[in-house]
Order: sequence, then structure tokens, then C-alpha cells
Amino acid sequence: MPAHPTSLRFDRLLLTGAAGGLGRTLRPRLAAYCHRLRLSDIEDLGSAAPHEELCPARLEDADAVHALLKGVDAVVHLGGVSTEQAWAPILRANIEGAFHLYEAARRHGVRRIVLASSNHVTGFYRQDEVISPADPMRPDGLYGLSKAFGENLARLYFDRHGIETVCLRIGSSFPEPRNRRMLATWLSYDDLERLVVASLTTPVAGFSVIYGVSDNTTSWWDNTAARHIGYRPQDSSEPFRATIEAAEPRLDMNDPATLFQGGPFARTTPAE
Amino acid sequence: MPAHPTSLRFDRLLLTGAAGGLGRTLRPRLAAYCHRLRLSDIEDLGSAAPHEELCPARLEDADAVHALLKGVDAVVHLGGVSTEQAWAPILRANIEGAFHLYEAARRHGVRRIVLASSNHVTGFYRQDEVISPADPMRPDGLYGLSKAFGENLARLYFDRHGIETVCLRIGSSFPEPRNRRMLATWLSYDDLERLVVASLTTPVAGFSVIYGVSDNTTSWWDNTAARHIGYRPQDSSEPFRATIEAAEPRLDMNDPATLFQGGPFARTTPAE
Amino acid sequence: MPAHPTSLRFDRLLLTGAAGGLGRTLRPRLAAYCHRLRLSDIEDLGSAAPHEELCPARLEDADAVHALLKGVDAVVHLGGVSTEQAWAPILRANIEGAFHLYEAARRHGVRRIVLASSNHVTGFYRQDEVISPADPMRPDGLYGLSKAFGENLARLYFDRHGIETVCLRIGSSFPEPRNRRMLATWLSYDDLERLVVASLTTPVAGFSVIYGVSDNTTSWWDNTAARHIGYRPQDSSEPFRATIEAAEPRLDMNDPATLFQGGPFARTTPAE
Amino acid sequence: MPAHPTSLRFDRLLLTGAAGGLGRTLRPRLAAYCHRLRLSDIEDLGSAAPHEELCPARLEDADAVHALLKGVDAVVHLGGVSTEQAWAPILRANIEGAFHLYEAARRHGVRRIVLASSNHVTGFYRQDEVISPADPMRPDGLYGLSKAFGENLARLYFDRHGIETVCLRIGSSFPEPRNRRMLATWLSYDDLERLVVASLTTPVAGFSVIYGVSDNTTSWWDNTAARHIGYRPQDSSEPFRATIEAAEPRLDMNDPATLFQGGPFARTTPAE
Amino acid sequence: MPAHPTSLRFDRLLLTGAAGGLGRTLRPRLAAYCHRLRLSDIEDLGSAAPHEELCPARLEDADAVHALLKGVDAVVHLGGVSTEQAWAPILRANIEGAFHLYEAARRHGVRRIVLASSNHVTGFYRQDEVISPADPMRPDGLYGLSKAFGENLARLYFDRHGIETVCLRIGSSFPEPRNRRMLATWLSYDDLERLVVASLTTPVAGFSVIYGVSDNTTSWWDNTAARHIGYRPQDSSEPFRATIEAAEPRLDMNDPATLFQGGPFARTTPAE
Amino acid sequence: MPAHPTSLRFDRLLLTGAAGGLGRTLRPRLAAYCHRLRLSDIEDLGSAAPHEELCPARLEDADAVHALLKGVDAVVHLGGVSTEQAWAPILRANIEGAFHLYEAARRHGVRRIVLASSNHVTGFYRQDEVISPADPMRPDGLYGLSKAFGENLARLYFDRHGIETVCLRIGSSFPEPRNRRMLATWLSYDDLERLVVASLTTPVAGFSVIYGVSDNTTSWWDNTAARHIGYRPQDSSEPFRATIEAAEPRLDMNDPATLFQGGPFARTTPAE
Repeated sequence: MPAHPTSLRFDRLLLTGAAGGLGRTLRPRLAAYCHRLRLSDIEDLGSAAPHEELCPARLEDADAVHALLKGVDAVVHLGGVSTEQAWAPILRANIEGAFHLYEAARRHGVRRIVLASSNHVTGFYRQDEVISPADPMRPDGLYGLSKAFGENLARLYFDRHGIETVCLRIGSSFPEPRNRRMLATWLSYDDLERLVVASLTTPVAGFSVIYGVSDNTTSWWDNTAARHIGYRPQDSSEPFRATIEAAEPRLDMNDPATLFQGGPFARTTPAE
Repeated sequence: MPAHPTSLRFDRLLLTGAAGGLGRTLRPRLAAYCHRLRLSDIEDLGSAAPHEELCPARLEDADAVHALLKGVDAVVHLGGVSTEQAWAPILRANIEGAFHLYEAARRHGVRRIVLASSNHVTGFYRQDEVISPADPMRPDGLYGLSKAFGENLARLYFDRHGIETVCLRIGSSFPEPRNRRMLATWLSYDDLERLVVASLTTPVAGFSVIYGVSDNTTSWWDNTAARHIGYRPQDSSEPFRATIEAAEPRLDMNDPATLFQGGPFARTTPAE
Repeated sequence: MPAHPTSLRFDRLLLTGAAGGLGRTLRPRLAAYCHRLRLSDIEDLGSAAPHEELCPARLEDADAVHALLKGVDAVVHLGGVSTEQAWAPILRANIEGAFHLYEAARRHGVRRIVLASSNHVTGFYRQDEVISPADPMRPDGLYGLSKAFGENLARLYFDRHGIETVCLRIGSSFPEPRNRRMLATWLSYDDLERLVVASLTTPVAGFSVIYGVSDNTTSWWDNTAARHIGYRPQDSSEPFRATIEAAEPRLDMNDPATLFQGGPFARTTPAE
Repeated sequence: MPAHPTSLRFDRLLLTGAAGGLGRTLRPRLAAYCHRLRLSDIEDLGSAAPHEELCPARLEDADAVHALLKGVDAVVHLGGVSTEQAWAPILRANIEGAFHLYEAARRHGVRRIVLASSNHVTGFYRQDEVISPADPMRPDGLYGLSKAFGENLARLYFDRHGIETVCLRIGSSFPEPRNRRMLATWLSYDDLERLVVASLTTPVAGFSVIYGVSDNTTSWWDNTAARHIGYRPQDSSEPFRATIEAAEPRLDMNDPATLFQGGPFARTTPAE
Repeated sequence: MPAHPTSLRFDRLLLTGAAGGLGRTLRPRLAAYCHRLRLSDIEDLGSAAPHEELCPARLEDADAVHALLKGVDAVVHLGGVSTEQAWAPILRANIEGAFHLYEAARRHGVRRIVLASSNHVTGFYRQDEVISPADPMRPDGLYGLSKAFGENLARLYFDRHGIETVCLRIGSSFPEPRNRRMLATWLSYDDLERLVVASLTTPVAGFSVIYGVSDNTTSWWDNTAARHIGYRPQDSSEPFRATIEAAEPRLDMNDPATLFQGGPFARTTPAE
Repeated sequence: MPAHPTSLRFDRLLLTGAAGGLGRTLRPRLAAYCHRLRLSDIEDLGSAAPHEELCPARLEDADAVHALLKGVDAVVHLGGVSTEQAWAPILRANIEGAFHLYEAARRHGVRRIVLASSNHVTGFYRQDEVISPADPMRPDGLYGLSKAFGENLARLYFDRHGIETVCLRIGSSFPEPRNRRMLATWLSYDDLERLVVASLTTPVAGFSVIYGVSDNTTSWWDNTAARHIGYRPQDSSEPFRATIEAAEPRLDMNDPATLFQGGPFARTTPAE
């Protein structure tokens, strides 16, 4: 049963990054909200269900991305690098790739994009600060920096071309929270679905930024300013608290991963 | 059973606009909170129950309004024009009438007014903005403009004469939400009752502005700053979402009624 | 020599309230900025200079106001009641009259209005508060309330019809400051000219609110948010301080006129 | 069963003010969260349970306080004067005593303090205002003033020495709300426990200020900015509303105790 | 010639701390603004000029302070400790002494106090932050903490008793700026006089906080919110820049005295 | 004579983009503030003065950039693309190049960078809005987007590595303002020098963003929050107003170049 109680259906949705962790989660769930689901990734996408179209593409390949956007109503863009890495792959997939995606959207008249941004856009705020999407960006690494680029790119294409984007600063989306930090950052898969579908179906999205997080008791992010999209989380990390705290009773208070919202991303990488 | 769990009772309440849509809804409900209920309108009020006093009056008639306010403890002012119309009737009922009401309150020592204002005071904000009562007024038409006048009038009478007002910027109060916009703006009748009674009974109302809206998942209005009156909505438009979206799957994104919070009020009227 | 260093010239400007105090001041000064100056008032306008057109009109007379706006490039609207008075004349001139003015501007394609608003729109702030145009309105009387109406009306006509307005919340514009309060509120005539001409000639006025005040050392108003119009005052009340303070060494600290920014307007009138 | 679902255990906690109202409430509850509980007060502490250490101490006695802090992991500081009184005892217990406590924490390497501050730090805000911990302090008496001192002291020791404090501006913590004011200010004992334990166990506390209040429908305090500590109240004063309002149907609107958040504390004391 | 162009004269002013650095500076200057100047200190005050009254008093001596306040119109309170020291003298002079001062003002009907507060109330902000009086206090030591206490005390006596205070968060008031930090914090003696006299003579002071600083090019403090008192500095540290920077070309960027606004006060003292 | 009155001298400064318009302006001026000036560009740098080192380098060439940063005390980074262009050159010079610059600074221990950012980072705000560096970025094109990237990159390298950057959002720096828009955006060459030198020499720069603009009467940008660097402009566009307005009396109000702060950059390019 769909997590979001809409009856709206898209003719064709595009899901990029469909072979990744969140992509595999959303792939079957999005079927409830569209007639055809186009899927893209650089990894193997398996075999297509009758309502699916498989379109492997590298994001840095402008032509491939343009082909991908043709004929779609809306995009859920999970594609690209999603971890802290060397600069080169981040540049190619998340900066060059994001540019190609928006150019393609403009050329093919795609009017709405749900953009998987990341809490790492603001990962250098401390864990004892509660921030909102209006606070200045403070990326915690090259990955967060590339997502900040993506958000500004989306803002430009809305201001100049009217293409709407909901930027989802996703926390930690896994079946269960895995550590102390995720008590604050966890986004359940059902809430992820609610969030993506609310972003796709709200009548007026404009340019919006919203943290992708469940209704956790511990919270660093105030989403009030983006309540207009109709997202209200239903899950919480709280039932996992006792188990997680038992497994991790001591934290190193001198570790940036303890202090900053970005967790381990805020550490200086060994290569540096 | 009253929706609001108070045990407070007023000696005499005045309900203006008692023959209108919300007036007919509140008339039987307010009986639980007062000994005598004075009712006024320019339309037929039917016959009076034992606890009721019928006092038809035109708001632009200063003498009639002064008679109306005599001997009442508090006022729920729903009277006046409640739709976008020509200037003349709005001027008479909502501007001249509101002035007479506050002058009469001052003369007769009435200390609190619950004023039916409207979301149309801020109807020219976009639907992708979440605003609070502290944001500047942006009326979406002559009706909203007259309600903005009423709020400023109430502020003056509080600052100068100590008469307290809770301005209720009512969204869309109907038995059920009727369209896509009302998924955000709906105020159930039970929540309306909760809101009006909380406004009447909170010890210190001062001059307050609060959006009159249920606990809808989609929300454009942040009422945090007026939580002091003790209103917490219990209903939500969410159960109606699938049905409403099915009936109205496509919206015209070039229509101001889609883009702005005021909905159809934000359209330029044909007469213009 | 013009106070404002522009070389721009309007074909035809309309100045309403031209027989009043500020109207008589601006009448000769505006000649430097236009080819033809249309003048209106209900009081005697004297005889017309070659570049002048005399058009007496009552603001509550819709037809007269429509005739007034025909063929003008921009309006400096000083007309209407400018003191605290009974409700009836304020309603007629400042509420009905303002409505007619904007309707006429819409019909005749006038794109910009410089609206004489007043510091009395916020006169119920205390003198130990520094406010900006973004703070909520707090009118200090019926006059201030009518000016608040005018500002909201202007906002509506900008949001709906694109007619630009600069609302000037004029402090105290006289040849010299006359009392202790005017050390904060004084607007010299040269600064008034600078302000009006900047409002008329700035490329993009949008809907702006700016306090009309000289560069006084004592200041209650922060105009930073409206620096875009290109107004920078050159005069100051400071040279008059010693003389004024000598004439008025003691103030009644229990008098609202001492405490509130609106000064004597904040007093309850005897008629009340 | 513990109200807070943590599995974390402290080796030794110190609870000051353990013989007071809230101290007696927390004494048995804190046992679930630590191996040893050191208790201090100037009043009789009864006999010690096996896990308890009784350490009577006067807060103005620096040596005693230093002994108290030795070997503890964290402190819950309820000690000191908790009512409006003469200056001398407030000075000794709440100002001198607080200074000794933080000096002792610094010397003995205690890294976290949960400080019982009070809503009376901001008791001179009106009841029709909703404030947050970021608003300026407005103490309503000498007691509130001493708590304001404590908060600033805690801030200094965090900025300079890295000692973390969560300042709890406790509302009214009793078994049940007792009067109209407590409909807004009530903190249930279970929520008190949740709040104290969340403050003790959150990984990064920094310097935080949070109002200690249950999930009451009427609310003057916006705790959003401190949601990072993981406190979410579960109780509400609402079930008590009808009974309380029946017992106290009329309030004196000229009484500061009605008007201000501090209630009776905001009254000028007879001694003055 | 007086630096401030007022013609107002007080009957009797009290200047505490008159033997200190700023006290000796203001002593002759205040003569221009009052008929009688009462002077107090614990240090030798020299001999009295005809218009002067010498009243040595220890601030922790309540009776002496009460005698001091009798019959004065207004107070300029510079008395107390003005450097970072041990806790005991700060407690006595700045906390106990300030309390006695305000109690005495209340008893003797003194309506206005100019309170020498300090930039060290906010000394733990970084030098790359620009703050305003509305930002939370962050004292940099025990001295700053005691001044924070004084400001909150003043706020209480205004809210409760209507005694007005202008808190002057004085930067560095010397004949010339002496080091790199003072390029931002310098307050010339003429500007000090302007500031004190403006604070004394503004009609409505309420409770105000203002940074005491000249018109320096480098600035950490935004005084906009307190422009209502009529203070506009005329001097600047800029002419001293080249000389000061030449004398101190290198700063230790790991020294808190370089990083924080409080300069050397932000260092942990050796005794600690 | 240097425009900035400092006596500080750097051992070796690096100026990138030294052959561009602003680079040629700063080249001789920076000589007054350093012993050696290293110059870089991809265009011809002419011949080196005795204190100069010429080091041509392409910014996208990581090795060349690393060589460039070796042994310098601070960097004035004007290099890269400074106009709206195709994506490829912007990507190479402004995104890849900026990354290499910060990596090189990190490796070679360079502690401060003055980064030529641009008003085009916020070019999609309207000309009737006054914004500050804390407002969200709204780039007006690919160039502005690349500068937004540079600012976020600088923020990351400050948060993670402590490298300080002052981002200068330069308006329009030319010998004279050239058009209506530049009345608001003009930065004189002397003010440019003041701004760059203040950024280089302020003791604590942290991560700061400041608009690079002279003291123009018309202003869209509020630099208050960055006054800590010690920049105060001395020039103004006002003397050029009459001439410029005469040359350009009519503006097309439907042209984005008129409406938005970015001027012509906000237009959709023909290639699109």
C-alpha cells in the first residue's frame, strides 16, 4: 500500500541512480504513482518490469542525459556519487552531471525535479545547533560541496526557466538507524517514499529545500519553512534508542564525527 | 459535547453574522459556553431559542451597532461581507461596520472581540511560501484589504483603549475540504469551535493574529507565535486527499488561483 | 537648484494636495523634474504658471479622480486629510479617495505613485524602540489607520496590477524642527524633495515603504531596507537641539505624547 | 519503568537540592540511569539506599562544594533557593553557590551540568507573547535574576573551559497543574525525568537553554531551537483544564500575576 | 565647549567611580550639564570644586549607597571593579554594589541611571562576527559576568519599577587607541561625553543597551537598535592605524586575545 | 599614496588574474603592501618590475597552481572567467581552478585568500530588494553559479582547515560608472584597493562575505555584517548620476536586465 495517500499518477517518471541503495528502495514504490517508470544508473539495473524502461546512462555524458529526459513528466534524481570521495568522480557525476540534467530538463520541457541533496550541505554545523534550510550552507566535504552546487543550480533554473525543484537534504535512509548520530538523522523508507511523492505531487513546488528526516525525537533540523509540500513523517528512531546507545555507550568528544552534524564526513580524510 | 474542554461560561456573548455559513455553525455550539447568546445579522435569523436574543442590525448603522454591544461580555464578529465583491458593500460592511463595532465596544466597556479576519489578508503570498502572522500583509483583493483594515483597527483599539482582539485569519471552513487548495486551508467545524472558544477564554489575549486552520499535512501558515491562546487543532484534511486529487488531477499552473495562497481571490476579476 | 542631481524629466506629473503645506513646498520644486505639472486640491490653488495645469478635485469624487489621472506619467499623492480628525472626513478622503486614485491609475495606465503615508502608521511604538518598515503596523489614531489602509491598497495594486508605489512615512516636514519630538522626526524641505524625486526616478520601485526623515542624530527608524530608491538625507535636526531643548526642558513622562513615536496623536482625543 | 528509553548508565551522578520538591522526585528516578547517586542538600536527606551517597553541603561553602564534585561524571543541579525571597539568601545560594559549583566542576574535570534554571528568567514577558530561549532575558524578580546569572556563568564556563550545560528553564513541576497559569507552565514529573535524562545523555550538549514544560495546549515557549537534546514531552495539562478553570473562573486583569508569564513572581512584593 | 549640543541641565547628578580613569575624565565635563555634581569613589577624590559634593562610599555598603542616591536626579554609575580579577572583589563591588544602587534608586525615586557596562559582556564572540545588543550575552570572564548581572538587574528595575537605564557597553576609552584590538573598540573621550550626555538627556530611555564606541572603520558592533538615544560618534581610530599596525605587525593567531572580541580578557588566567 | 592607511607589509603576495581589468589596476597598487608580488594569468603579463615575479599558469592545471602557491603569504584571487559564457570554460577555470587553488593553499600552508566573488552570486534578487551576505544565494547565470561554488569551497576550507577567506562580491569596478545599474553597483578603483587591503590585513578574517561596492547613494546591499574587516568606502557614484541618467533616460521595464540586480546577466542568453 502506498505510504502517501495520493491518487495522482504521472505518465512517465524518471528515476536516476535506480541501482543504488535508495534507488532500489524507491523503484518498486514509485510504481504506484506512475504509469511508466524510466530507470537509469551506471550499475546493472536487472530486468525491466512491464511498466519499466531501463536506460543506463553516465551523468557526465550530455547526450545520454538528454536522451534520458525526453518524454518524462518529472524526475527523481538520486544519481551520482553519494559518498565522500576523490574530487574527480564527484566533479564528473555531481557537478557536470547535474548541469547536464538541468540543461536537458530545460530543452525537453520537464517542469519538476526532485533532487537528492544531502544533509552534508550543512554538515559543518554542530550537533548542538538546530538549523533550517534558510541558514547558510556549510558543506562538510567535497560531496557536500557538490550537493550545494546542485541546489544553487536548481535555484538558477527555477529563477531563470521556471523549472521547479524540491531539494531533499536526505539524512540517513536505511532500514534502521545504525548508530548514535542516526538517532537524529534517520529517514525511514516509508517516510522517504512520503517525502518523494509529496515533492512530486504538491501543486506548487517552486524552489524548496527540505531536510529528509523522520519524526525523530532528537532533531537538528527545523523543516517548518517547507511544510507547504505536504510532507509529514510518520516514523521515528526512538524505538531503536536503547539498543543503539547500548552498542555505542562512549563517544570520542574530540572526534569531529561526534561534534558535527555531518558525522564522519566532517573528519579530515586520511588522503589529506 | 463541546469541542473545547473549558468550564468557563460567559454571561452574554454576541455573535454577529449569525445567519451566515459559519454563524449557523457556531450558533448552537456557542450555547455551551454562555448563558445568553445575542445574535445579529441582516439575513433572517429564524426563531430564538430560550437562551438566545435576536438583534438584527446593519453594520453600517452606527446606532444599531451601539445597541448591539450593550451589555455583552465578549463578541464573536463574523458579520460583514465574506467574499470578493464590488467596493461599495465591502466599504460599508467591513470598513464602516468594523469602525462602528470597535467604537461601540469602547463605549460599552466590552473587553474582548474575536474577529473573523481571513487568509485573504495574506493571499498574495505564493503557495510555496510558509508565512507567519508577523509577515507583512499582502491582501489578494478588496475583501482581504478590508480585513487588513479590521486587524489594524483592532490593534489601535488595543494599544489605545486596551480592548483585546484575537484576529482569526480563517482559511476554508466547510464540512469537508472541497478542492486541492483546501488541503492546505481547511478548518473543520470542530476546530473552528476550538479556536473561537480558546480565543474567548484565554486569560490574556492582547492583540493576537492566528491562522484559522486545522492540523493539515500541507500547511502554508506557521501559528507558533500565537500558541499562547491555547488552540491546538485536532482535525486534518489528509483523509480527503486521495478523493480530492482524483477529482482535480490537473491544475493550470498559469492561473493565479493555483499559484497564490488566496486561490481564486487572487485572480483579476472580469469586471476589471 | 534642484536638490536631487537627476537629469530625468517627466512629461506630466500630478501633484495632489497641492494647496497644503507640503504641496505648496513641492509645487515650485517639482517644476525642475517635469515638463507639465498638474495640480489638484480642494483648496484654492492660486493661478497657474505656464507649465502648470490646475485641476481641483474632491478625492471622494470617483469621476473627478479618474479625470485627474488621465495622461499623467506619475503621481505624487499628498491629498487627503493629514491630521487626526473625526472618522467621517478621514473615511471619505483617505480611504474612499485612495481607492479611487488607484482605480484611476489602473484604468489610465499610470505606473508609479509616490504616496504620502505617515509615521503615524507606526505611532504606537515607543520612542525607545528603533523600527523598520518591515515591523507590523501600529497606527496611533484614525489618521494613521487610514494611511495603513493606503499602504495595503498600494501593495494590492502592485501585486495584482504591477502599479509601483513608494510609500513615504513622512515624519515632521517643516522649515525647522519645532519641538523635542521633531529632533527625531524632522524632514527638511530639501530632503523631502530628494526623497520624492528619488522615489519618482528610481528604475525599479516595486512596493516600497520608507520613512521620510532627515539625517537626524536621534532616530527611531531604520531605512536600510529601502536604500534601493537612492535616497540619502543631507540635513539634520542637530543644529536646533540646544534651542529646542531650552524651550522645552521638562516633559511629562506620563503623557503618551512623550512616550510614543506618534507624539500627540497617541493621546486619546477629548471627544473620546 | 524509566520514562526515557536510554540504556546509558553513568558511573556517578550528583544531584544537588535532593531534599527539595523536585529533588525528592528525581532521587528514585535517577537510580535507573547511574550506578551511584550522590545526593546533597542542606535539609535532611533521610537514609541512603545502597547505591546512594549522602553529602550534605551548603552551596556558599566553597570547600564543601569542591568535595561534592570530586569523582562525579555529571551533575543535576537543583540546589539553592527556588522562590522569590530576600536578596541575602539568593545571593549566597544562587550566585555564590553557582560560582563555587562551576569552579569545582572545572577543577575536578566534570564535563556536563544540568542546571535547574527557571521560567522566571523571562517572567516579565507578557502571557500573550510566545518566546524562545534566544530572546533577551527579562527576570521577574531577584530569584529570576539569580538564575539569569547562573545561565551566563554556565555560558562562560562552556566558552572558556568546555564544560557543557543544559539550562532547564523549568515551568511549574508538580503532580498536577494547580491554577490557570500552570495550564501553560506545567511540567509533569515524567516529562521532568525525560528532560533531565535527555540533557544528561545527548552526545553534544554545548551550552543549551530549554524550557522545561510538558506538551501543553497553551504554550508561551518555543523550544524548537533546542530540539537537539532529544526531549519530547508526552504529557499535557489539558485534561485538567475544565476543573482548573471552574475553580478560578475570574482573574484580575490588573494583577501583574495575570498579565506576565512569571505570574505571582511579577508582583511587587509587600516588603518593597 | 561641551561635546554634546544640549542646553538641558540637571539639578544634581551623581557620578560614581569618580576617581577612576573614566571618572576623572567625566568629572570636569559633566559640570556643563548640571548645577551640582555629587562624586563618589573609594579612592581619593581630591578637593571639591564649588559645584561639587564629595561622598566617598563603598558600593557593598548598603547604607552608604542609599545616602549617595538621596536627592539626585540621575546617576552615571562608573563605580566598581573594571578589570578581570578574583571573584571576591567583583562579587562585592559589581554584584552586591549594583544591587544596593538600584534598591537605593527605587527608594529615593531616582528615575534614570547610565550604567557603565562593558564590551566584555559579549567578549566571547569572535572578532570576525558583528553583533548587536540583541544577541545573547557571552561574557569573557568574571568581570564581564558581573556586568551581565548589572544589565539584567537594570532590566528588572525597569520592568518592575520603571527606573530607566542606558547600559553602555564601553569598548576601550583612552586618549588614543593603544593596540590592534582598539582599532575596533576605541571610544574617544569626546565621544564618551557625547554618549553619556545623550543617555542622560534623551526623553525616553527605557531599558537600552548600546555599545560605547567611536566611529571606527573597523567595527564589531551594530548600534542601530539604540539610535533612539541620540548618540552619533564623531571620532575614529583610523588616523592611528598605521602607527599601531607598525608597532604590532604580527599577532599570535592561536591566542584567544587575538581571536575573541574580549581580547586579553578571553585568555584563561594563570591563576586558573 | 596608498588608499588604505596600513603600515603592514606582506613578504610575498600572489595576485592571480593579474592581466585582467582589475588585475592590471591592483598590480601597481599592491606594491605598497608587500615586498614581493607574484603575478599570474593566462594572458601576457608584460615585463616584471624588480619586486615582481611573473608566473603564468592555467587554473585548471593543478601542478601549475600548486607551484604558484608555494611560498606566498596570502592570495588575491582574481583569476578565472569573469563574464557569462559557455559552461566548459567556466567549469575549467572557476570550478576546477578554484578547487586546485584551495588544495594548493592547504598543502603550502597559505592562511588567507581574498577571493574575487561577484554580485552575480545573488543577481536574481530584484533591484527593489536590499539584501545582505546572509541571504540565500540566487545566482543569475553560470558565472554566478561558479562563484557561489567558490564561496562554498572557501567556507569548507575554513571550517575544515582554518584557511581564512574574504569573499568579495564585487559589483562593477571601472574608472567610472557606465550605466543606470552601476549607480548602485559601482566600485571605484580606490575603494577596490581599500577593500582588498582591508581583507588582507584584518587580524581575524574567518570566512566572510562582503559586497564590493562604493558608498553609492543607491544601494542594494547591506554590508553591516562584515564591517569587522575594516572596509569603509570613500567614493560614490552620485556625481555621475545626472550624466548617466541623461544618456539612458528610458529603461525597458520588461527586460530582466532592468528588473534584477544582475542586470544583463539575468537575461536568458541567445544561445539558449
